[in-house]
Amino acid sequence: MDLPEPPLFTGLFAVNGATRLYGTIGDPIRQLRLTGVMSQIFAAVGANAVWLPFEGGPALLPVMLEALGKMRNLGGFTVTIPHKSAILPLLDHVTRRAQAAGSVNLVKCEADGTLSGDMVDGAGFVAGLEAQGHRVRGASVWLVGFGGVGGAIAAALCEAGVGRLLVTELNATRADAGLDRLSRFYPDVPVASISADHPPKGIHYAINATPLGLRPDDPLSFDPMTLDPDAVIAEVIMSPVETPLLQRARMHGRRVHHGHHTLDYQIPLYLDWFGIDSKGVDVVRLARSIP
Amino acid sequence: MDLPEPPLFTGLFAVNGATRLYGTIGDPIRQLRLTGVMSQIFAAVGANAVWLPFEGGPALLPVMLEALGKMRNLGGFTVTIPHKSAILPLLDHVTRRAQAAGSVNLVKCEADGTLSGDMVDGAGFVAGLEAQGHRVRGASVWLVGFGGVGGAIAAALCEAGVGRLLVTELNATRADAGLDRLSRFYPDVPVASISADHPPKGIHYAINATPLGLRPDDPLSFDPMTLDPDAVIAEVIMSPVETPLLQRARMHGRRVHHGHHTLDYQIPLYLDWFGIDSKGVDVVRLARSIP
Repeated sequence: MDLPEPPLFTGLFAVNGATRLYGTIGDPIRQLRLTGVMSQIFAAVGANAVWLPFEGGPALLPVMLEALGKMRNLGGFTVTIPHKSAILPLLDHVTRRAQAAGSVNLVKCEADGTLSGDMVDGAGFVAGLEAQGHRVRGASVWLVGFGGVGGAIAAALCEAGVGRLLVTELNATRADAGLDRLSRFYPDVPVASISADHPPKGIHYAINATPLGLRPDDPLSFDPMTLDPDAVIAEVIMSPVETPLLQRARMHGRRVHHGHHTLDYQIPLYLDWFGIDSKGVDVVRLARSIP
Repeated sequence: MDLPEPPLFTGLFAVNGATRLYGTIGDPIRQLRLTGVMSQIFAAVGANAVWLPFEGGPALLPVMLEALGKMRNLGGFTVTIPHKSAILPLLDHVTRRAQAAGSVNLVKCEADGTLSGDMVDGAGFVAGLEAQGHRVRGASVWLVGFGGVGGAIAAALCEAGVGRLLVTELNATRADAGLDRLSRFYPDVPVASISADHPPKGIHYAINATPLGLRPDDPLSFDPMTLDPDAVIAEVIMSPVETPLLQRARMHGRRVHHGHHTLDYQIPLYLDWFGIDSKGVDVVRLARSIP
């Protein structure tokens, strides 16, 4: 009997009764790339585990969490739109950086049935910067966009010991709430809110954490040419790889940092959080090799 | 980078964000063979779907059902020990044969979030008998063992228009409850309870639906040699393939019917229930070819 040829690089799993389940809860979820990435990672580190799409909106979240803690072969999951903020108060334990970010993107089902949450969108961003030789400790950072991903990056920068953090956010309510959380969890880090019309001086890293750049005709969230010539211009948008912001910065000889690093460097954090030994496999390089 | 060679015949899935989830809820579940079988079936019929183990006991069941109806990419699941009876009152719709059996082994998540249950352990058994050329309509059947699987077979035999059904069950409470259900849902079928000490005459099919025969030193649940020479001796036990009952019957030239047919012939019923087109693939033959 002829079976259809399995497609390359989309995640080949050998599932049996002892397979542990991982996945992503979200809505929409059909575009999810992580199923393909994590299947290769699990295969490479020899884990009997599968990464699944769990498709559902706000009505699913509380009952799903109740169920997931009781499903013994569910190891954990990541959380995407629209659940990242809503899930936080529903968990049993939440890390300091996730509380400071006000959102969670990574949940582990503990052996006792409780659920622990972390936020590693920002930690992945910081790990990506550091891996490219960009030291964060003591640096001056301008963060443009202080919503979900911006809040996560801000918390991770504070945790990494940033010297000074300036944030720009048009939504004043959101900005105030975010600054309040940061000052509560990281009182020693100098944080201030500034307007994009008055670009700061002496900045080492300027980060676009707004959605501007997803579409080709979006305006820039800030003009990289107003910054010091040695400032690194960083992007959180993964697709397109080269946003208009990065294009303009690179065209004028500025140093740039691409958005895909943020996800690449989250993979080792996922494995750590789930207690899966990477067995020396370079999972960042492997993740990056998967289309 | 060298990825480990995927094992043969254990279920290779290409999972992406649009993959539909199916599986089995039970405890224990690590021995589950269906993950391997259904992965081959899904691949053969071109369904973007995966079959998973959902491991959990009685505490999981109600919250899991609440969650599963809200998870939009969960297509459905089968139910095994210890949930087959407990799940029945928790479902929104239950087929006649499942109500008559008092148990459910197959659940579909409907588009409106409700859950529909069926019991096809018995229907699979009857389909297997018929496929071997053993006509059930009008036949006289002796069913030994009237517990979970026996109750399911009894209901399926009644639905298939059996002429007369005799049941033998040592547990009187269980026997009474089962007979009561059958008479309620299939009042036109003559059903009676008899003792194994007085084997009936004129029987076409005698079925072992007790666990006797799982272990090599188990006593026989009945003696096949007391029956008419042309009676078919049928078994529900799948492993060992040749139980002492079937051995003894075959050794004396009697016709036998093996337990594995029951599961093999459930596969098309699963696909029908989930609304998956088998596209002309002989799924019974394929299921049987999988070790």
